[in-house]
This record gives sequence, C-alpha cells and structure tokens, in this order.
Amino acid sequence: MTPISPLLTDLYELTMAAAYFKQGIEAPATFSLYTRRHPLRGYFVAAGLEAILAFVEDLRFGTEDIDYLRNTGLFEEAFLSYLSALRFEGDIWALPEGTIFFADEPILEVTAPIIQSQILETILINAVGLATLIATKAARCVHAAQGRSLIDFSLRRTQGADAGLTVARSSYLAGFDATSNVLAGKQYGIPIAGTMAHSFVMAFEREIDAFRAYARLFPQRTLLLVDTYDTLVGARNAAQVAQEMRIQGHPLVGVRLDSGDLNALSRQVRAILDQADCKEVKIFASGGLDEYTLDQLLRQNAPIDAFGVGTSMGVSADAPYLDMVYKMVQFNGQPVRKRSFGKATLAGEKQIFRCASREGEYVEDVIALRSETMPEGYPLLQPVMRAGHRLHPPADLVELRSLFQQNFKLLAQAYKGLTNPPRYPVGLSRQLMEMQDY
Amino acid sequence: MTPISPLLTDLYELTMAAAYFKQGIEAPATFSLYTRRHPLRGYFVAAGLEAILAFVEDLRFGTEDIDYLRNTGLFEEAFLSYLSALRFEGDIWALPEGTIFFADEPILEVTAPIIQSQILETILINAVGLATLIATKAARCVHAAQGRSLIDFSLRRTQGADAGLTVARSSYLAGFDATSNVLAGKQYGIPIAGTMAHSFVMAFEREIDAFRAYARLFPQRTLLLVDTYDTLVGARNAAQVAQEMRIQGHPLVGVRLDSGDLNALSRQVRAILDQADCKEVKIFASGGLDEYTLDQLLRQNAPIDAFGVGTSMGVSADAPYLDMVYKMVQFNGQPVRKRSFGKATLAGEKQIFRCASREGEYVEDVIALRSETMPEGYPLLQPVMRAGHRLHPPADLVELRSLFQQNFKLLAQAYKGLTNPPRYPVGLSRQLMEMQDY
Repeated sequence: MTPISPLLTDLYELTMAAAYFKQGIEAPATFSLYTRRHPLRGYFVAAGLEAILAFVEDLRFGTEDIDYLRNTGLFEEAFLSYLSALRFEGDIWALPEGTIFFADEPILEVTAPIIQSQILETILINAVGLATLIATKAARCVHAAQGRSLIDFSLRRTQGADAGLTVARSSYLAGFDATSNVLAGKQYGIPIAGTMAHSFVMAFEREIDAFRAYARLFPQRTLLLVDTYDTLVGARNAAQVAQEMRIQGHPLVGVRLDSGDLNALSRQVRAILDQADCKEVKIFASGGLDEYTLDQLLRQNAPIDAFGVGTSMGVSADAPYLDMVYKMVQFNGQPVRKRSFGKATLAGEKQIFRCASREGEYVEDVIALRSETMPEGYPLLQPVMRAGHRLHPPADLVELRSLFQQNFKLLAQAYKGLTNPPRYPVGLSRQLMEMQDY
Repeated sequence: MTPISPLLTDLYELTMAAAYFKQGIEAPATFSLYTRRHPLRGYFVAAGLEAILAFVEDLRFGTEDIDYLRNTGLFEEAFLSYLSALRFEGDIWALPEGTIFFADEPILEVTAPIIQSQILETILINAVGLATLIATKAARCVHAAQGRSLIDFSLRRTQGADAGLTVARSSYLAGFDATSNVLAGKQYGIPIAGTMAHSFVMAFEREIDAFRAYARLFPQRTLLLVDTYDTLVGARNAAQVAQEMRIQGHPLVGVRLDSGDLNALSRQVRAILDQADCKEVKIFASGGLDEYTLDQLLRQNAPIDAFGVGTSMGVSADAPYLDMVYKMVQFNGQPVRKRSFGKATLAGEKQIFRCASREGEYVEDVIALRSETMPEGYPLLQPVMRAGHRLHPPADLVELRSLFQQNFKLLAQAYKGLTNPPRYPVGLSRQLMEMQDY
C-alpha cells in the first residue's frame, strides 16, 4: 500500500493540536480504540494493526503538507515548525490481528503526549475499522461455507482502491483461500485466482471455441464460465472440452455458474458432468453470495465445491460500518471518561483477560485494569510499540491466518450463529468498576 | 490521489488478455458501463470520470508489475512483452460528472481493441461505482437539508483511505459545503472545516477553560462542542465565552451538539443562547445523521443551522453498493449481448437523449443508438477521449458542482422523494429495440 499521508485526518485533530501546543499541554494521554455493540455481529476479528504500525512509525509531515497548512491561514508558524518535527514517541498495546474479540473490549490503546495520541484518531479508526469489519464478515462466510473453498471476488465493488487491498488481506486472514485481486497477490503474497468473463465467451464465434482457447493456454488451471447463453448447453460444452483436455493429459479444474438458481443448476450441471465421466470436474459458483446464501445452499446440499464471494463480503453489505471509537481514558495519570448520554466510556488503561475451559474453549472475558493480574484468565492485549518503535517485525500473514483459525476453533458454535447469536459474556473487574466512580 | 497500479484488477482480465493475444484476437470491442435498478434510489449522480481518465491516459505496466506476473508462472514471455508496451489507444464517451442519470442508462462507453477495453473493467466499475454511489447519497442529503449547510465528517468511517478522498470530492460535487478531510482539501481544493473532540474538553480542568483556549487561538472560526458532560450546562458556558469573545470583537460561530435528542436539545440550547443575547451563535448538529434523520429534524422545525454528516453518507449505509456492470455491447462491428437469466444486456453503441419541458424540466429519457439523432431531446453522453488522448483538460470541481446543481433543479420534486419515488420514464428508441432481435 502507498504510504498514508498524515493530512488524511480530520481538521479538528490539527486545530486541537495547535491549541494544546499554544497552551503548553503535553501531558501523556491514553486513548482506547473499541467498537460498540452491533446488532448483526456477535463477535469481531481484529485486523489492520500492521498498516497502523507502519503508518505510526513513519509519521512525518512533509514540506508540501506544511505548505498547505500554512496556506489555510489557520496555524501559527511556531506550531507548523513543531508539526514538521513531530514524531510518534509513545506506546501502543494491541490485540494481535486474527484475535476474536467482542463489543466494548479495547482493540488497541495508545499512550503518548496528548498531541501525539490524539492525532492518530481518524486514521486509526479508519484503518482498523475497515480491516476488522471485513475480517469479521469474511469469518462469517468461512463459517457458513463449512470447509468449502472461498475466493475473494470483490475488487470491482469495494469502496475504492485501497479498500480492495484491505478486503483481500482481511478475507485471507479470516480463512479465504485466494483473491482475484492481482495487486493484493503482489503486495501480500496471497494466492490469486480467476476464471473468465462473459465477454470472453462472446468474443468467439461459438462458446466451445472460447473454452478451447482458454484451456489450451491455461491447461493446469482452467475454470469454464458456462452461463453466458444457456447453462446446461454450456455444461455439455465444458464436458466435451474436459474430455479433449484429458487426452492431452490435463484435467479441467471446473465450471463456474454465475446466475440463476444455483441449487437447481448445480444439480443439473453435476449430472451432466457425471454422465460425461467428468466426476473430477468441480463446480464453482458465484453471483450475489454472502454468508446467508452460502448457508442456504449448503443446507440444500447443492453440489458446489467452491464459491466466489464478492460484493456483499467486500462492503460488509448487511453491516457496512462498525461503531468504532477512539476515546481518551486517562490523562496526566488520572482516569477520565466522557459521560454523554448513551455514549459513556470506561476510564483507565485496560487489559482483557480471557477465561477458557479445560479444553481451551472460551468461557468469559473480563475487562480489567492493565495493572491487574488475573490467574483465571490470560491477557489478550500485547505491547506492540514502545517509545515510537515497533517491538516486533511485521507479522507473517500466513501465521496470522493460523492464529485466527486457532482462535475461531475455541469459540463455541453457538456464538458463531449467523442470526441472533447469544451474547458472549464480557465482565468488568471490580477494580475497573470502582475506577468508574472516581 | 496516488496513481492506481494496473495490477489493481481481477486476475481474469489478464488471463483473458493473454488468451486474446495468443489467438490474435484484436478486433475493437465496445463496453458499456451502467447500473441496474436499485430499490432505494430513484436517480443517480454521475461521478468518478476524472480519476478514470487520468488512470487510462497513464496506464502502463511497470517492470515490477511484469516481474510479479512472470513469477506467477501463468504468462508467456511474448504476452509479458506485449503488456509492458501496452497503452490505451481507444475512445471513450461519458456523462459529465454531476449529470443526473437513471438505471440501465450507459454512464460511459469504451471502444478499443478488445484487450484494451476489457482490461479496464475492474478499475472502472470500482472507481465510477464508488464516486457515483456517494454523489447520489450526498445529493439525497442535500435535498433533505433544504438549503442548510452540510459538512462531510465521514473520514473516520469511510471504507479505507482513498474512499475518504472520494467521499469528500463526491459529496462536495453534490452540494456539500466543506469537508473535515484535510488531504481532500489539499488535493481537490475543497473548503475544510472542523470543531473539537470530547477529549479536548476533557484535557482541561473545566469545560469553559477548553472553550476559552480554543476561542483565543481560532477567534474567527470557533465552534464549541457542548455535550461532553451536560449539554445545557455546556451551552451556558458557550454563551459566556461568546460574550467574552464579543468584547474582543470576535463572534462565536456556533455550538455543536453530537448526542441525545437533537430536536429537543437544539430548542433548549437555542433558548439558552437567545436569552444570553447570542442570537447570532449558530447551532450545528452531528451524530448518526443521514437524509432520513435530516428530513425528520427539519419537519420538526428543529432550530439547527448546519449539519455534520458522517458515517451513513460516507459508506452509503442504506445502499452500500450499486449493481454496476461493464458489458460488451459490440464486437468487431457487430452488436452483441449476453442473455443470462435476469442479467441480459442491451447490444449496440448508445446515446441517451433527454427530453425536457419548455421550462427545461426533465420529462423523459430515451436510450438510442449512438448513430441516431433525436430532435425532441438533447444527447447526454459526450466524447471525452479519442485514440487514447483526453479531449479536454481536467474539469474544474466548482464547475462540476454547478453542473450538478443545474441538473438537480430540472429534476421534478417527485423523483427526489426519499422513499418510493415514482420511476422516471426511460424508453428505448425503435432502432435500439430492433437491434436486440438481431
């Protein structure tokens, strides 16, 4: 991803910084990033930390940035000098990417002189918010697919270019097997996959000519799109090409259905393929899929081997944003909290302790003070940056994927339900509760 | 915006290109970009063309891109050489940004040798899709606000960084007055605006100290956030600061409400301000607003002068994607169409003719062949690129904003309804219909 400009922020982050600077306010402040309850999500999957650490470590206002700010006429020269020398020198605790977490639990806490910690607000919510939103949606799709292969097909409908990259990365983190997004393949090492468009079939005189041309060029990985004209005729053409390929020693990987009643069509196409002695040819389906339709198709026992999941996952269509916020919880060593109606925050620097059964299954989380210990649980938030420096090299995406899988295995089935899952128990420690009455 | 990599595409665009190259298929193909009907949108606002023209004119596969593609093992060397020399040499017709259009009408048509026109599919849908989605959502908010000022506050919740830029630009195009997004201010010349966060108020001993510190530094543009502790107490503190500022010859611009019952609170706050002789201090409201809540607040006659609109507009929450597609409609001089069930396309190169009343009000659109003339309407699609070169310099954003305003004024009120608006009549010319039976 291209470096994020420090001007990609809300103006108030800079005017507040100017006011702190003018007043000589530089005491350390701790901010906590968390998401409020969402009616359609029982759990969340942490993601986006890597992009944030890279941004924070490299945070610098360049000459052009300062010139633009000067031209707004809003800022004094002394503040602009201060900004051009600004580096992040604080500490960050965070959930590793791939960690399962719940509403109101801190995903990340930043402690730094108030200007430095405040100024991260906008970009932090933006980057962690999107990555987490999509990892969570993708995990729901993976759960619904019951082990069948999923491919991210969302790039054309993601909300912009870097959303396309984030979606590819977050969905891979949460168990997708590949993406159609070539740049994501290059940048993150994610396996890339694809088939063909209807226009390709239409560019040939006959459908079977298009199939043969593609199969000749990509004999190891041909998936034929069979619904341009008539799906069943297309399936018969594909079976014929599969037999021709077999003579050359190549297997046809599969056929792809992209429209119509996928349950009924997949059965008819399976029958055509089986009758043509093409039992090894897989059926791949796409077109408006999400966790709900995946679940339905599998309940119907549709003979589909793999799915391309696009738009609905790529924009998290049923829940296109999280109510994620970044709130000051400690200032100058004292706990603080906002008390606006319905939007109150929990004061204090925190830790989450996760309590598990003897088999490792998650039983309950307790949000506590960071200074507490809790022998019945293990801590989830880890130090990731100290005095402006990362404590670990960038995590390997394949390892994060395993971390997610381990986490997800330990979450009981009930909490993974697609609709109306029960609330996972999240309690507050007594010390944390007492602090709220300060 | 940073240049878009040509690898930001679906793998199949490249494998299809390789197959066309291998087969020597290079006849010109015309693709049409349009959006299918959306149940929650009666009209759309075209946007995103500028970014696309810049991308297409500069389209180049660099050495690193080619190296990555080589390493996938999918492509032959001859094709990689071809790709590294590829430039777009085709023609594009498009709706100017800010044009009102309707479902099934072409937003843009590309004609070029098939590899060149096909390869634009993913990025074109992505970029025009998001920009149009947001311009449309923003237009609905502007309509609901009945002339009150709107500010884009969405950056923290947009789906990624460049979505934040696109949202700022599209919402400004559709009549918003400013954005909080500083980088959008720098890149597009959009006015920037902002207030303060609750954490700012909390960083001072007393709320009124925070207000005074901010007012001293920004005497010309202070908006005080009054709901950190108690909104009515906050309003009284703001009134006091307004009186102090007045003595210094400065006006307090306004106070901001960000939580609670905005109708009730705005009345109480207005009364407090008026009683304190601060009739000139405006009330600014934010917090979960969209066209529906704006409409409701104005129906209640809530005394609010301006609104910060964030998340719901920034992700188009009630309709987070458009069913926008890019379909081949002509190949090698012949009309073509896909016939998949429920997803059929209209063959042929097209023009949209808009028929208006004597007063200019839009009465009906007719989708016709590009070669047709239609004296009762005027054509909407314009040539914007010929043989790979732009025909006009980049359009001025302020002019596009006026173009939108002119368009929007000529759309009858009925079609602007927020819920269940009637269908605007869009017909097909006889010649176009006859072509579909080829």
